[in-house]
Formats: sequence, structure tokens, C-alpha cells
Amino acid sequence: MEERKRSDERKISKAVIRRLPRYYRFLSELYERETERISSKELSRLMGLTASQIRQDLNNFGEFGLQGYGYNVAYLKDEIGKVLGINKVHRMILIGAGNLGQAIVKYGGFTNKGFIFTAVFDYNPNRTGEIFGSHPIRHLDTLAQYLEENPVDVVVLTVPKRAVADIVKIASRRRNIGIWNFASMDIKPEPGMTVENVHLSDSLMRLSYNLKTDREMQRD
Amino acid sequence: MEERKRSDERKISKAVIRRLPRYYRFLSELYERETERISSKELSRLMGLTASQIRQDLNNFGEFGLQGYGYNVAYLKDEIGKVLGINKVHRMILIGAGNLGQAIVKYGGFTNKGFIFTAVFDYNPNRTGEIFGSHPIRHLDTLAQYLEENPVDVVVLTVPKRAVADIVKIASRRRNIGIWNFASMDIKPEPGMTVENVHLSDSLMRLSYNLKTDREMQRD
Repeated sequence: MEERKRSDERKISKAVIRRLPRYYRFLSELYERETERISSKELSRLMGLTASQIRQDLNNFGEFGLQGYGYNVAYLKDEIGKVLGINKVHRMILIGAGNLGQAIVKYGGFTNKGFIFTAVFDYNPNRTGEIFGSHPIRHLDTLAQYLEENPVDVVVLTVPKRAVADIVKIASRRRNIGIWNFASMDIKPEPGMTVENVHLSDSLMRLSYNLKTDREMQRD
Repeated sequence: MEERKRSDERKISKAVIRRLPRYYRFLSELYERETERISSKELSRLMGLTASQIRQDLNNFGEFGLQGYGYNVAYLKDEIGKVLGINKVHRMILIGAGNLGQAIVKYGGFTNKGFIFTAVFDYNPNRTGEIFGSHPIRHLDTLAQYLEENPVDVVVLTVPKRAVADIVKIASRRRNIGIWNFASMDIKPEPGMTVENVHLSDSLMRLSYNLKTDREMQRD
């Protein structure tokens, strides 16, 4: 049974996975506003999805809605949190003590989901020991040793492209590690490595495309 | 004909639009490495897509490949750039002079695609006049007047959630404006407004999900 459930979970489409954090976000806001329950119709209006889309998405993970009652907000939020794996603490280290790194380390929205920074690294020896968002900066040369001695779930990369390959090589010695990559290149995961590449430029280009087509529509 | 082409363009699926910037990124890298042409097979290996997926995606916008030759890198890059609308200059203003704002204003990867910052705003009067990535910070109270007097294509929002509604209201007086939103809430576009919401938390939650399922697979 356990086996079957797991391999079922893996078949969930990427599109559903992409939407899941958005469900979690909207449910968290409802929860903060002390909303106890919500119908799939209301939730669909709020999120700009169809009610049947929502039912279909959520049915991938279990039976959450009750006919005539709708969804219990707190329960659904927690269940989606479990599916996303954010019901446990993730220990993160930051590599690259620049502006983007600072914005990420200081942002409270990650901490309150259990993503906790435990160390910060930078290649520049002049910055070793400098306090960076409550962490003393460690030199990148000590990364391999740190990874051997400390539990780390996620490595956050806010370094230039050219620095990526060496760091990935070091991180790959550890199994079950996640890389949250902000360097402007796709990292291909090594065995035992899970990668999420963030490309802010891609998002800006999509905005540019939509702006262009919206303008064309208004001229029609 | 022109009419038909335009309405055809609008039917292109969101999934294709989501992939387009990635094509542009890979082609730009090939171009920088002075690669003249590439087969759909090579491109598919590089990008981790099937060759037929690539042909299908690109056929939405025209005939780019030649049998037995493949794609001309410079030409395809420029054509995708045109589809994305990044063949012209976009004037951007930043609102919210914090760490994330600084990372964005200073990042060269936007400028070289024609996304140019022309002004920076912040609500804190003590910071007015301070130089922020080569721009003197203006007070948020002067935003409405600035938008009346200057051409602006994109407003980049790196402000807390609570500041968003007022800014959107001011920006909505201007037609054909894009909002690149980093505040942790979805902005619903007003008429004449194009919005791209960036949610870094969503990306981190996807990483958490994939890390969890990868770990389960390794235990099997």
C-alpha cells in the first residue's frame, strides 16, 4: 500500500506541483484572517481558477472537500503543507553574501515556513567574520568541511555564474541535498541532488511578452 | 492578414510562453560562444526537451529550422527576442529601495536586454536624495507626478504587502503599464495593466516538495 501511494504521488503532473504553493499561499492568508471554511466556488473566484480545476488538483492528494460544507481552511492548509514537505524544518546555508543574498536571508516569509538559515559563505576573504543578517560570514574554502560536519537540507546560491560549478561539485558529495539556484544558468542535478533554478530574467521577459500582446489588443 | 496573425498569437498557450524565455537564454549562451547553428537534436539535449517539443513550440511563431541544417542561432535568438518584445527599450522605475531592490537595480542582466531603470522611489522621507544604484531616491509622494510627466513601461515593486494597493491605484491611471511585483501577494491587473507576480516562496516550496519526493524515491 505504502509503495503504491508513493509511486502514485510521483505521477502528479508538474503543472499541479507548480500550482500547489499558490494554494498554500491563499489558504495561509484565509487562515490569518481567521476564515474557518471556504467553498470551492469562493476559492476559485479568489484564485482565478475554475471550481472543477481546484477539485481536480486537490483530489490528487486526498479527499479534502465536503459537499455542502466546502473546505476546512486550517486542515487543507496543513495537508497541503505536508504534501509540500514544509511541515518540517529545513536547514539552509547561503553562498554569496551580496544584495540578493541579504534580501533572502532577511526575509521573514521563509523563516515562518520552517526554512532556517544556519550559515553564510562568501569567497571574499576580506569579508570573513563580517556579520551578515545575524550570521558571521565563513570563507568558501570551509564549505566542504561544514557540509561534512553539519546537517544541511538546502544550499541557496546567490553567486555569479562562474562560481557555480565548483560549489555544485562540493555539494554533490552530500546525498539528499537541495540547491536553490539564483545564478543565471540552469544547474543540472547530480545524483542525490534536487535543484530549483530561479531565473528572474525569464519572469521579466514574460512580462515583456504580455505587455506587448496586451498593447496590441488595445490597439485593435 | 495582420488581424489574423495577431489573434493567432494570442492563442499561444501559457506553457509555451513560459518556455520561451528559456529558449532565449540558451540561444544567447550559444550566441556568446559563437555557435552559428544547432540541430533541434542538439538543442533538445542541451535544454532537456524532446526535439519534437522544440519544433512544436517554435512553429507557433514561424518557420525557423531548415531540414539538414538545423537552426541559425543568431537569427532564432533575435526572432524569439522580437516575439518576447525585448527588441526594444523598456523604461523601468523601482519602488522600494531595500536589499532586493538594490540587487535588481544593480543586476546587469536586465540592462543588456534593454530594461533600463530611470528612477527609484521610496516611502521613507529620510532617504530622499540618497544615491541608490546611481539613482537619487525620490519620495513616493512624487510618483503620480513622475508618471504623468515621464514615459514608464514597467513599475518594479519591491515593497511590503501593505504598500501595494496605493501604488497600484496610482499606476493604474496610466494605460499600458507593466507591474513586476515582488510583494508577497498576487496583484490583480487593473484595465490597461499587465502584471507579473514573482513569488520566491513558491519556488522554495516547490524545491521542498521535490526534495521530499526525491528522498522518498532514494529510500525505496
